[in-house]
Amino acid sequence: MRKGATKKEVNDVVQKAKSMDLDVQLNLGTDKTVVALLGSNTGQIPTDIFGVLPGVESVTRIMKPYKLASRSFKPKDTIVRCSGVEIGGPRIVVIAGPCAVENEKQLMEAAEIVKKAGASVLRGGAFKPRTSPFSFQGLQTQGLELLAKARNAYGMPVVTEVVNTEDVELVSSYVDMLQIGSRNMQNFALLTKAGKSKRPVVLKRGFSSTITEWLTAADYLLAEGDDQVILGERGIRTFEDSVRFSMDISSVPVVKKNSHLPIIVDPSHSAGHYSLVPALAKAAVAAGADGILIEVHPNPKEALVDGMQSLTPSDFARLMEELKVIAKAVGRYI
Amino acid sequence: MRKGATKKEVNDVVQKAKSMDLDVQLNLGTDKTVVALLGSNTGQIPTDIFGVLPGVESVTRIMKPYKLASRSFKPKDTIVRCSGVEIGGPRIVVIAGPCAVENEKQLMEAAEIVKKAGASVLRGGAFKPRTSPFSFQGLQTQGLELLAKARNAYGMPVVTEVVNTEDVELVSSYVDMLQIGSRNMQNFALLTKAGKSKRPVVLKRGFSSTITEWLTAADYLLAEGDDQVILGERGIRTFEDSVRFSMDISSVPVVKKNSHLPIIVDPSHSAGHYSLVPALAKAAVAAGADGILIEVHPNPKEALVDGMQSLTPSDFARLMEELKVIAKAVGRYI
Amino acid sequence: MRKGATKKEVNDVVQKAKSMDLDVQLNLGTDKTVVALLGSNTGQIPTDIFGVLPGVESVTRIMKPYKLASRSFKPKDTIVRCSGVEIGGPRIVVIAGPCAVENEKQLMEAAEIVKKAGASVLRGGAFKPRTSPFSFQGLQTQGLELLAKARNAYGMPVVTEVVNTEDVELVSSYVDMLQIGSRNMQNFALLTKAGKSKRPVVLKRGFSSTITEWLTAADYLLAEGDDQVILGERGIRTFEDSVRFSMDISSVPVVKKNSHLPIIVDPSHSAGHYSLVPALAKAAVAAGADGILIEVHPNPKEALVDGMQSLTPSDFARLMEELKVIAKAVGRYI
Amino acid sequence: MRKGATKKEVNDVVQKAKSMDLDVQLNLGTDKTVVALLGSNTGQIPTDIFGVLPGVESVTRIMKPYKLASRSFKPKDTIVRCSGVEIGGPRIVVIAGPCAVENEKQLMEAAEIVKKAGASVLRGGAFKPRTSPFSFQGLQTQGLELLAKARNAYGMPVVTEVVNTEDVELVSSYVDMLQIGSRNMQNFALLTKAGKSKRPVVLKRGFSSTITEWLTAADYLLAEGDDQVILGERGIRTFEDSVRFSMDISSVPVVKKNSHLPIIVDPSHSAGHYSLVPALAKAAVAAGADGILIEVHPNPKEALVDGMQSLTPSDFARLMEELKVIAKAVGRYI
Repeated sequence: MRKGATKKEVNDVVQKAKSMDLDVQLNLGTDKTVVALLGSNTGQIPTDIFGVLPGVESVTRIMKPYKLASRSFKPKDTIVRCSGVEIGGPRIVVIAGPCAVENEKQLMEAAEIVKKAGASVLRGGAFKPRTSPFSFQGLQTQGLELLAKARNAYGMPVVTEVVNTEDVELVSSYVDMLQIGSRNMQNFALLTKAGKSKRPVVLKRGFSSTITEWLTAADYLLAEGDDQVILGERGIRTFEDSVRFSMDISSVPVVKKNSHLPIIVDPSHSAGHYSLVPALAKAAVAAGADGILIEVHPNPKEALVDGMQSLTPSDFARLMEELKVIAKAVGRYI
Repeated sequence: MRKGATKKEVNDVVQKAKSMDLDVQLNLGTDKTVVALLGSNTGQIPTDIFGVLPGVESVTRIMKPYKLASRSFKPKDTIVRCSGVEIGGPRIVVIAGPCAVENEKQLMEAAEIVKKAGASVLRGGAFKPRTSPFSFQGLQTQGLELLAKARNAYGMPVVTEVVNTEDVELVSSYVDMLQIGSRNMQNFALLTKAGKSKRPVVLKRGFSSTITEWLTAADYLLAEGDDQVILGERGIRTFEDSVRFSMDISSVPVVKKNSHLPIIVDPSHSAGHYSLVPALAKAAVAAGADGILIEVHPNPKEALVDGMQSLTPSDFARLMEELKVIAKAVGRYI
Repeated sequence: MRKGATKKEVNDVVQKAKSMDLDVQLNLGTDKTVVALLGSNTGQIPTDIFGVLPGVESVTRIMKPYKLASRSFKPKDTIVRCSGVEIGGPRIVVIAGPCAVENEKQLMEAAEIVKKAGASVLRGGAFKPRTSPFSFQGLQTQGLELLAKARNAYGMPVVTEVVNTEDVELVSSYVDMLQIGSRNMQNFALLTKAGKSKRPVVLKRGFSSTITEWLTAADYLLAEGDDQVILGERGIRTFEDSVRFSMDISSVPVVKKNSHLPIIVDPSHSAGHYSLVPALAKAAVAAGADGILIEVHPNPKEALVDGMQSLTPSDFARLMEELKVIAKAVGRYI
Repeated sequence: MRKGATKKEVNDVVQKAKSMDLDVQLNLGTDKTVVALLGSNTGQIPTDIFGVLPGVESVTRIMKPYKLASRSFKPKDTIVRCSGVEIGGPRIVVIAGPCAVENEKQLMEAAEIVKKAGASVLRGGAFKPRTSPFSFQGLQTQGLELLAKARNAYGMPVVTEVVNTEDVELVSSYVDMLQIGSRNMQNFALLTKAGKSKRPVVLKRGFSSTITEWLTAADYLLAEGDDQVILGERGIRTFEDSVRFSMDISSVPVVKKNSHLPIIVDPSHSAGHYSLVPALAKAAVAAGADGILIEVHPNPKEALVDGMQSLTPSDFARLMEELKVIAKAVGRYI
């Protein structure tokens, strides 16, 4: 309460809280009165309900707003199972492939390269969210067909991004795992639809979302009954301009502490430049990530999208060898 | 090019550019060779195409990536017309109303209050994008019906947010103007659908999007042939924690310089607290905004959403009087 | 306290607080126990003292860490008096002049221009903090002599930046008012020295400092017994790249609410480009700033430092006329 | 140049450049004319000199503003030597100790603990830069005496922060290595003094400084002839609020690419919480850092400053064992 708040103002806050079935404790300090509101759902009550009452100076939330994604809701680590691959267990999962599916030859070559080097899941974009309407938007349905073909040919599950609520069913019918991209992390209509698909979902972090907002967005997926959610750190927007996004490596231990969901890291999108990818991938594994997501292209010079951040086949193979050693150093394997 | 780049590497860049019908000029400095690529569409070519070539150190874009929204594409100011109200002309447009439509009584009271104080457009949310799935999500279709009712009763156009591609037609059938919210600024599927609706659209700035990305997102709407786009500044995410979002007042003159589209400012969402709204609203008008978007609630203490940032009827009426004086001081009127 | 914290852990926290003469109230929630610590100096106690105790989940500070700068410490507005000019009263103070003092002719011309257009204080840099050691570092003592000369010739007080503790006495002997620059806002040795000088001090906000940190830095000046402190907003670092710094216009009402000190705004350094300065200056006056700080150069094309953000004499004169109208619209004058 | 810039305007830019001994090349595009300025010192020329000329739209710098710190200036890695310890070689250097020197017992215990666990350098603060003037400011000269005593007793070099130009000589006379803190990274007077001390200097990154600004600040130290500079990443300010500062792990590969100077990482200050330190320390080693800086306290519960981020002796010993394995995995040792 504000310094000098009246007894009536304090009492009105108390009555409001009681009307919502909350417990109340009054702390009468020398300078200020603090009203503590107690109850098991205080994390989900909008603070404004109390903030607008006369005499209130500010409302500070102690409980987190997310619920289903929290470790206190489910203390044990969630292991996501995707067509035979476990994410969140002792094995560090490498998801690799081109940014965009461009044609059959490119995708099949990419699949062979990443499979051979030890990746477990193939990635490739069929629907591309592009900042300009005049850029290549992806092969769409044709891209999905190629992904399904590559999966069958190489026996590895595939993941692709879905950008439109209207496409969720279509995309789910072709691939093993859905990805919600950074720009759609708070597209709640899309989250709800994806949650109903019963496919495992990689929820990329919004590039300007806090970890708390990210876990709260995961609640949208989890609320549909789907507990097959993987969190994907991909860098946040900061003032630093030598990289496209600053990888928030701290999110790995912070998520591990506060949530039961597995977390994977995408060094390619955060760095924006292939030369920085190996150092960031190693850091992610050392910090405790459950997997990494890496862009690999048979020939980055010919890539239609994001060639700059894609590894060549030989660079990827070398990195995989280095990552295996680091994984071992932290008691895991690839 | 990198220091020490070979003649062949330079030549490969030149050939690549020529194959894309670009003009090329070589700058042979004492330390480095710089290759200049010239052409009228260089703003839309991904820089990665050249960045991945051997010997290239970095690619710097001189042209802006947006096109249709740029002032060089259309030098004259766009005036958006919405059911008799002009946005972008000498009159500063005030769009006001509650954050969420809660019930008929609340909306009708709000409409009367804002109309009487001099607002031109009524706002009210029917579909609410909420960070948690456990929060109130809006009255949805019933909310749209109430908005249509208020419009007819008070003779003022209404604007509401659309959050799902599947709802665009429905929402367009009830209201005069659509709003794309901050979290959906890069939901390109939604932009494309909204662009096809032929309704004027308020495109709120993503809270972590640059002005360049914002204008490039506007290109998605404009590419559908709809030039009835209004840009809405609503604050950006920064490290400052005394406000919900930091209003980026500089965006007003920057947008005016680079784009022909009108720009309005939302002080309510950026401040997050009613006590800061008047100062920010006055600043927006003084800086040259074409309109402001203000949350007003008949009784903020009872608001279901964002009561904290809503003005009371009397505060709003007082602010309107103050804004009229400032508008006059900058050669406009309300 | 963490979920499941033991009675002993709770008790240890209580004992620690009591040993520091704090009052304690226990809130036993269904999920968690919250311990409230009460006392008039809790704003100055490091939260870590309690954060490290076993069983503690987090420590949330309710009281602000600043004290002398707070409005609750001194409810009435402070008016700073600088050689006959009052800052913080009804008159909006315009401080203008070149970024750097370059030579006698330039400074005298600038003084004449700004005096004639209605500015109250002359600014000019003698010691320039430059990011590179190879850039022009200012005329130093010779610059101070020229400032003193201009003051005498035009009868207006002068302000200049001090960058080194060793120079505080020297600079104070020449000028009416000291400025602490953004990069030195947390140079506590310099603050302490400047506080002892008994000169009014303009404390520029660190470009990445929160308002709370800024007011806490002001406490360093105020703790030396000097209450002649003016806060200077000059833009903060954000991801937006169309301006050098994003002017945080919200800081004006936030500071007015929380502190008794006057606040002035520098649109030149935040915009970084002369074309944006007028809109930002008008916004600052409309938002309630007590003054503005503007860079003016007799001939910006010849400026040694920051020519890009300097107004020409005619642009400055025109802006002053516009600002007078806005000042009147908010019940003040220039 | 702006679209429609006149021939005379282009010519004036060319003449200005020639008067500064720069080479010029004109690129006459279909939409715009671009003027390329060439010369070996273009990184140090202020862009404003050209930006203010009529007809100029914007000036884009291709060369970096730092010089002495750049890898193109000195291609080979610098190895800093500090009383027998090499930083920047194959051995990863661990610098550990308490945040603040509190008393003899505490410092001696800390020295013994960190020495035994394998650290090479002892850290401890004697002068503490604190945000509030009412917080503990360090033991100052007495702290320096204790650091010298600990160095002699345990035979390990010591490093401490210097915050005031007037203290540089005093501090240099007691310790082996100086530290410039984050808040003073652009305190150029202090950098110049520290550069003259001929002590190795750890230059902490300003928490809101770009890597380019950091390397340019290093030029201030290097310009004094001292090449014994170590860069210290300690986290940057972002919107994320679950940590005190977001460790910018990307800075490790970016610095390695652009500079010859060694880089060390401080996970304690960035995390702000002991539970996150091990994951971040491992990530730093895996990413290629040349050393880490860790806060260790014999009894964090009793720490006067930053107890929350200090490791206990047993946690530190365990972490050292884990780091040795990771160091080996990346081909180095501790």
